[in-house]
Amino acid sequence: MSTTSDSPPLPTCIWLTGLSGAGKTTLAERLGRQLAAAGHRPYVLDGDRLRTGLNNDLGFSPADRAENIRRTAEVAWLMADAGLLVIASLISPFEAERQRARARFATGRFIEIHVDTPLSVCEARDTKGLYARARRGELRQFTGIDSPYEAPAAPDIRIDTSQSTPDESVSALMAALRDLLG
Amino acid sequence: MSTTSDSPPLPTCIWLTGLSGAGKTTLAERLGRQLAAAGHRPYVLDGDRLRTGLNNDLGFSPADRAENIRRTAEVAWLMADAGLLVIASLISPFEAERQRARARFATGRFIEIHVDTPLSVCEARDTKGLYARARRGELRQFTGIDSPYEAPAAPDIRIDTSQSTPDESVSALMAALRDLLG
Repeated sequence: MSTTSDSPPLPTCIWLTGLSGAGKTTLAERLGRQLAAAGHRPYVLDGDRLRTGLNNDLGFSPADRAENIRRTAEVAWLMADAGLLVIASLISPFEAERQRARARFATGRFIEIHVDTPLSVCEARDTKGLYARARRGELRQFTGIDSPYEAPAAPDIRIDTSQSTPDESVSALMAALRDLLG
Repeated sequence: MSTTSDSPPLPTCIWLTGLSGAGKTTLAERLGRQLAAAGHRPYVLDGDRLRTGLNNDLGFSPADRAENIRRTAEVAWLMADAGLLVIASLISPFEAERQRARARFATGRFIEIHVDTPLSVCEARDTKGLYARARRGELRQFTGIDSPYEAPAAPDIRIDTSQSTPDESVSALMAALRDLLG
C-alpha cells in the first residue's frame, strides 16, 4: 500500500490484545515507527492513555470493560476512516467484545494480533508493579488474576514476546502485516 | 500551514456550534473540501453521525448532552494529535461544556465558530422536520424549543447563514481561518 495510491484503502485497524505486561505498548510503538517508514500514517490508540481521557469514567467491571472496548473500536474506526492506520493496544480480555470491534470493519480490515506472552512471564516482568498489587488484593478485577482473559479463538497473528527479542517480534509482525495489509 | 512543514502543528480543532438547521453540516463539509485543497488534512466529526456510533448510548438530557460533548472533544483531540485538522460540527448548546472542550487544546488551537442563524430561520428551513415535531410535542428537550441554547460569549468567528450564500459564508470562514490557523 502506498499513500499515493488512487483509491484510498478501506479503514483498517491493527488490534493488539493480551495480558498486562505482555509487551503490547512496546510492540505498538515500534510497529508504528516501522509502518510510518513504510509509507503508512499510523496512530497508536493506547488503552491506558484512553483511560485518562475518553474512557476516564470507566472502571474495570465487565460492563465497563465492554464499554471501554466499544468506544475504542468506534474511535479506531473514525480515525481509520480519516486515512490513518490505527494500532489499538489494549488488554481487551473478552472475545465477544473483540468480535464486536472486528464487526465494525470490513472483512480483512481488522487485524487481531494476540500478544500471547505467558502469564508467568508477564507477572515476573511486572513492569508497573500491578501484579504484585493484585496478588496482595490491593487491585481487584485484574486480568489474569481475578478477572478472566479469553484468548482469541482465531487471531490473525499470534506472537509470544518471551520467545524473541522486541526487534525479532516486530520484524515477524511486519512480515505478516505486509501480506495482510495488501 | 503546510503539510510539509518541519515541526508538526499543535493539535487543532475547528468547532461549529449552533442550532439545528443553522447550516453547520453544510459549512463543515464545504470547509473540509476547501481546507483539503489548501493542503490540510481535514476530517469532519459530525454530531448526528457520532450519535449513531460512539455516542449511541446517549440521549438529550443535560447530562447526556454534556457527555456527548466531552467524548466528541476527546476524539477531536486524538484525531488532531494524529495530525488531522478536525472540524467538529454539533449543536453543543452549553457554554460550560464548550469551554471544557476548548481547554483540551492549547491556547489558540480550538477555533469556535458560532453558526449564528436566527431560530426563526432555522425553524422555517426545518430541513429534517424536527422543529415541527418538537412544536407538536413529539420531540422533547429540543434545543431552541424546550431546551436552551447558550450562545457563545466570545466565539472566535461568528457567522449568520441567513445573511449570505453558502459560497460567501465559506469564503468568509476561510479568510478568517487563514489568520487563525497561522
